[in-house]
Amino acid sequence: MKVLGYASSSKEAGLTPYNFTRRDPRPKDVVIEILYCGICHTDIHAARNDWNSTIYPVVLGHEIIGRVVSVGPDVTRYKQGDNLGIGCMVDSCQKCDACEQGEEQYCKKGATLTYNSIDPHDQMKTFGGYSEKIVVPENFVLRIPDSLDLKGAAPLLCAGVTTWSPLRHWKIGKGSEVGVVGLGGLGHMALKLAKGRGANVTLFSRSPGKEQDARRLGADDIVISTDANQMASVNNKFDLIIDTVPYVHDVNPYIASLSRNGTLVMVGFLGNLDPTLNTAPMVRGRKSLAGSAIGGIAETQELLDFCGEHGITSDIELIKIQDVNKAYERMLKSDVKYRFVIDVDSLKARG
Amino acid sequence: MKVLGYASSSKEAGLTPYNFTRRDPRPKDVVIEILYCGICHTDIHAARNDWNSTIYPVVLGHEIIGRVVSVGPDVTRYKQGDNLGIGCMVDSCQKCDACEQGEEQYCKKGATLTYNSIDPHDQMKTFGGYSEKIVVPENFVLRIPDSLDLKGAAPLLCAGVTTWSPLRHWKIGKGSEVGVVGLGGLGHMALKLAKGRGANVTLFSRSPGKEQDARRLGADDIVISTDANQMASVNNKFDLIIDTVPYVHDVNPYIASLSRNGTLVMVGFLGNLDPTLNTAPMVRGRKSLAGSAIGGIAETQELLDFCGEHGITSDIELIKIQDVNKAYERMLKSDVKYRFVIDVDSLKARG
Repeated sequence: MKVLGYASSSKEAGLTPYNFTRRDPRPKDVVIEILYCGICHTDIHAARNDWNSTIYPVVLGHEIIGRVVSVGPDVTRYKQGDNLGIGCMVDSCQKCDACEQGEEQYCKKGATLTYNSIDPHDQMKTFGGYSEKIVVPENFVLRIPDSLDLKGAAPLLCAGVTTWSPLRHWKIGKGSEVGVVGLGGLGHMALKLAKGRGANVTLFSRSPGKEQDARRLGADDIVISTDANQMASVNNKFDLIIDTVPYVHDVNPYIASLSRNGTLVMVGFLGNLDPTLNTAPMVRGRKSLAGSAIGGIAETQELLDFCGEHGITSDIELIKIQDVNKAYERMLKSDVKYRFVIDVDSLKARG
Repeated sequence: MKVLGYASSSKEAGLTPYNFTRRDPRPKDVVIEILYCGICHTDIHAARNDWNSTIYPVVLGHEIIGRVVSVGPDVTRYKQGDNLGIGCMVDSCQKCDACEQGEEQYCKKGATLTYNSIDPHDQMKTFGGYSEKIVVPENFVLRIPDSLDLKGAAPLLCAGVTTWSPLRHWKIGKGSEVGVVGLGGLGHMALKLAKGRGANVTLFSRSPGKEQDARRLGADDIVISTDANQMASVNNKFDLIIDTVPYVHDVNPYIASLSRNGTLVMVGFLGNLDPTLNTAPMVRGRKSLAGSAIGGIAETQELLDFCGEHGITSDIELIKIQDVNKAYERMLKSDVKYRFVIDVDSLKARG
C-alpha cells in the first residue's frame, strides 16, 4: 500500500513530503484513513534523534484519529466508517503477564510502537500518523465516543492517557489532593482529568500569569514553584503529584509537598536526576517517587469513554501539515495552548 | 523516680553509668522494669551525634523488653507482672490523621521518641532502655506473646517492625517476590518476616559466604550484587525490595531488578543518593522508589502476634551492659549475628 506522509530524513532536515509503503492488511487489521494527528514532544525528539534511536526516514505521529476504510475478514469490532483512534502502540506480544493484565505499554518483549519500531511479524518499519493511512490490528484500535470533537480527541491518545494512567493506578478520586507540575500538553490534560475524577487540583508553575488559564482547565489553586513561601504552604499536602516536565529539574521541593504515603510520578523526564534525590523526607513520610509510561489499551478506551461522558478534550491549535516545522519551533518555545493537531486533509493540497 | 542507666555524655566519651530522674507516673502510665534492650545502629548514631541532634547526656535503647512493676489508676490493659515491649516511640499527638490512622510514626507534630526527645507534656527529656526502669503511657506499650523468647523479641520492636511495615503496606504475601539488600539486624529480620508471610525471598549481598546463613534465615536465593551476571539474572523480578543498607550506595541496580509496578523501599539510608537515580527504567516499568520508617503501634502489635504464631524472633548475642562500648565497635565492623541485646540485669553488678 503506497502512502504519502511527512518524514524527517536526518537530524537537521526538518519534515518534508515522503512516499512510503505500508504492509498489506492482515486478517485482523483495520485500514484507517487518517483525519487528525496530534504533535507530541516525543515526535520532536525522534525527528532530531535526541535519543540516538531514530531510524531515518521517520514518519512521526502517535495521536491519531481516523475513519475505517476497510477491515480484514477476522475483524469483529469495527466496520467501515467508524471513527477510531490509535495511540503510541500498534502491537505487543499479547502473551506476557503485562499484556495479559492490560498493561501492553510494559510488554516484556517491548510493544511495537506506532513509529520508528520494527514490526516483529514482517520486520518492516512502522510509520506514524503524519500520513494518509495506517494499518493497525483491531485490538490496538480505540473507539472514539460520538460526543467528542475529533480534533480535540487526538491528544487523548498520548497526552491524555499518559496522565490518566497514574490517576487511575494511584486511585485518585473525590477528595484526593493532586498536584500537577508543568502546564504543557500533558499538564493541561492532567488538570482536566484530575478535576474530572473529583480531585482537588493544584498547578505548580515556575511563572505567574498562568492562573486564569489554569483555573479554566480545572486547577483549584496555583503554586509558584520559585516562591519559597508558596511552596511551604503546600508542605505535606498532595496524595499524588504528576510531574510532566520533560527536562531535568529538581524534584526535591515536590517531594516535600507530598503527603504521608504520597507519590510523585514522573511522566516527562527520563534520565539522571540532578540535583540528586534526598531520601530523608521519603523515609519520614513513606513517600514514593515513581515513573509511568502512557497507558494500556483497555485503560485508553476507558479514558476515551470517560472523556465522552464528561465532555473532555484537549485544547488544540489546528495546523496544516505544511506548517509542521514551524509548529515544532513554537513547541520548543512552549508557544502552544496546549497541543498542535495536524489536519491531515491538508496533505491533499500537494502540488 | 531515680534510675540508673548507661549514657553517652559526649561524641567521644563512650557509654558510662549514669543516674538520672524519670518523671513520676501519670494516671495512664505503666512503670516497667527493663529486662532486655536491643542495640540498634541508631543508638550509635545518637551516641556519637552523627546527625547533630543529640542532647547529652543521652540514654539510648529503643528495643525494650520489660515487666510491669505498677500501673496508673487509668490503665486498663496491663497489670503487674505482664511482659511488655516498648519500641522507638513513647507518645504522639493522638489527634492528627496519621495518629488516627495508626501511623503514629508519621505523627504531624512528631512522635515523642523513646530517647533524645522532649516530652511535650512536661518538657523533660526522654531516656531510653539502657536503664533499670521506664515509664510509658499504656497506648505505647506492646504485649509480648507468651510463646516468644524475651531476649530474641527485643529487636522486633525496631528492626522487626521497620521491615514488617513495608511488607504489610505493599501487601506482600504468598507468591510475592521479595528482595532484601543487606544482611544485618534489619536484613535478617526482613528475610524471616518475608518468608513468614509466604513470599519467595532473595538476599542481595556484596560478598559470598553468607549463603548458608541466609538460607537458614529464610532466603530462597542469594544474589551477589557485585556480579553483573547474577544481577542480570534477576532483572525485572521483584515486587518489593527492602533496602536495609544504612549508608549511601547505588540503588540503580536494584531498580533494574524490580518488576513492573515494583517498589524499592529504603529503610536504612536517609540522605542524598549518590550516584544519582536514573528515572528511565522507572518510567518504562512504573517502578517506585520509596522510604519507610519503623511502624505504627497497632502494626507493631500485629507483628508481635504474628511472630508469636510463627515462632519468629531475632538471632541475638546477649551481652552485659558493661560491654556495650565493645559491642558498638563490633557493630561498626558488622561483627554481630545479628543483633546485640543487653541483659539489663547486669546493671545490678555495679560497684
